[in-house]
Amino acid sequence: MAVYTDIDDTALNALLADYDLGPPLAFKGIAEGVENSNFLLETPKGRFILTVFERRAKPEDLPFFLELMSHLAEKGFPAPRPVAARDGQALRTVQGKPAVIVTYLQGMSPRRPDANHCRKLGAGLARLHRALDDFRMRRPNDLSISAWPGIWEGRASAADALSPGLASQVAGDLEALENDWPKTLPGGSIHGDLFPDNTFFLEGELSGVIDFYFACTDFLAYDIAVCLNAWAFERRGEYNLTKGRALIAGYESVRRLEPKERSALPVLCRGAAMRFFLTRLADLASTPKDALVKPHNPLDYAERLGFHRQAKGPGDYGA
Amino acid sequence: MAVYTDIDDTALNALLADYDLGPPLAFKGIAEGVENSNFLLETPKGRFILTVFERRAKPEDLPFFLELMSHLAEKGFPAPRPVAARDGQALRTVQGKPAVIVTYLQGMSPRRPDANHCRKLGAGLARLHRALDDFRMRRPNDLSISAWPGIWEGRASAADALSPGLASQVAGDLEALENDWPKTLPGGSIHGDLFPDNTFFLEGELSGVIDFYFACTDFLAYDIAVCLNAWAFERRGEYNLTKGRALIAGYESVRRLEPKERSALPVLCRGAAMRFFLTRLADLASTPKDALVKPHNPLDYAERLGFHRQAKGPGDYGA
Repeated sequence: MAVYTDIDDTALNALLADYDLGPPLAFKGIAEGVENSNFLLETPKGRFILTVFERRAKPEDLPFFLELMSHLAEKGFPAPRPVAARDGQALRTVQGKPAVIVTYLQGMSPRRPDANHCRKLGAGLARLHRALDDFRMRRPNDLSISAWPGIWEGRASAADALSPGLASQVAGDLEALENDWPKTLPGGSIHGDLFPDNTFFLEGELSGVIDFYFACTDFLAYDIAVCLNAWAFERRGEYNLTKGRALIAGYESVRRLEPKERSALPVLCRGAAMRFFLTRLADLASTPKDALVKPHNPLDYAERLGFHRQAKGPGDYGA
Repeated sequence: MAVYTDIDDTALNALLADYDLGPPLAFKGIAEGVENSNFLLETPKGRFILTVFERRAKPEDLPFFLELMSHLAEKGFPAPRPVAARDGQALRTVQGKPAVIVTYLQGMSPRRPDANHCRKLGAGLARLHRALDDFRMRRPNDLSISAWPGIWEGRASAADALSPGLASQVAGDLEALENDWPKTLPGGSIHGDLFPDNTFFLEGELSGVIDFYFACTDFLAYDIAVCLNAWAFERRGEYNLTKGRALIAGYESVRRLEPKERSALPVLCRGAAMRFFLTRLADLASTPKDALVKPHNPLDYAERLGFHRQAKGPGDYGA
């Protein structure tokens, strides 16, 4: 949860003057999204979310994210639709920072996802991939395997401070990933960060997917691997096979996995766990003590790495 | 801004099972109120705010706050109305903490209040006092003059660390307040914490007053003094006479001040500044480093104390 930027009346009124949304009727900072500041905005035209982009979002990436969301919304996928101002542009500037107004989605984020959530999430992820089949913009995944050695560098002692012996295990994981990472798999646009916090459900159905600010071009099955890490683990790195199976079956009810995607799942899961372990380890060091946001614990992902290290094949994941 | 408590699906569903509000359609932590956790809740019956009471709220005080809000709402004052569950009770328990669902109010909190806001706020404060004329519950102000020496004790060096020499000035202020504090003035139920953050405006009119969790029984003019401190100062302790005059004139357009209230305004303003200086100084020491909320800067109120120390009479405040 985060509200890094305080938007004053003058800035909000100046922003809304560019739109045909009418005057603000309510405006509240909300605890949604970790990377950016988010505000619930109500006007006579309805409810919207104002996102102000903070440190991690690179300005040159923003058109990709916004076009991708527009593409999904036009295809009927429940993603927030960026609202264009009167000049046709959705990307604006508020108090010197890039910002966008998007449509509001109803629903509740599952705090404790069950197998039904996982099945619906898997199907939703495949629909997302399908809907982006003909999306033509490209953005390399800058948090994938080629980035990991650089993030890891200089952090071995921080890892050992979290858990003695962790550094040498991580070094071994990185070597194994380097050797085993697939060269080619079906690719396309992926969400890249599809945690339960970034989904809404209504009456047991997926009603919304938000926070596309890690979306990129990568193996489609890597997105499944991110989701298996985020949705199918219990505490202490215990894998819930029922949830994993439901997630994969849900995905395959919409898009069938190719045999080589299925066999790559274990290494992709290991890599996805590495990605979140490393960025959380780095965030731990860089989050100022007085920040409004608590950094995630990297150990949750170190524990998942432990499971992936032992996995014998896709069957261990329910595939 | 604060969300101290994370409410999971199970807890929210258990809470809503006691009401006739239907299932949740959306639920978001919001950055509103500093002392408690607040969530925007949407159901088929409309929008509501769920407040979960944290550390500073004493459970035995909660009935007073809720009855006072209900009383105001029934009189047509724009305060949130506590929503009773099926058993008739509005006060509930969520995850072991007291909690209440109240109605949602539209409007925007002015981040930079102008003289019009101050005039409307003053009139609204007088209407609030009027509407509570026949409210019969009593709650002593436990943050008024008798509490200040206890909060101040042991904090002299913390004050001098903020600004060298501040401690002896504060000690002098406390002595002067002890000597000059009025013995009798018209009393009743007051808001006690009516900062701009706790108000909403729509089209230039006061559309809502929230956060009644410092409401108590005290001199009515003390509530004006709190507002003059919160609404009529610029940076560096500079008093904006135009705003102060507008606030007092707004108040008097609804309820005329008695001569002794007018003459007591300077000492009441000095006392109100002392109250916020001292609680902020104490919060500075007690806020954990990893809290989601930034403590307010006590120096803002030390600077206001500087103005009050020099004030020659009610005319200096625009009364």
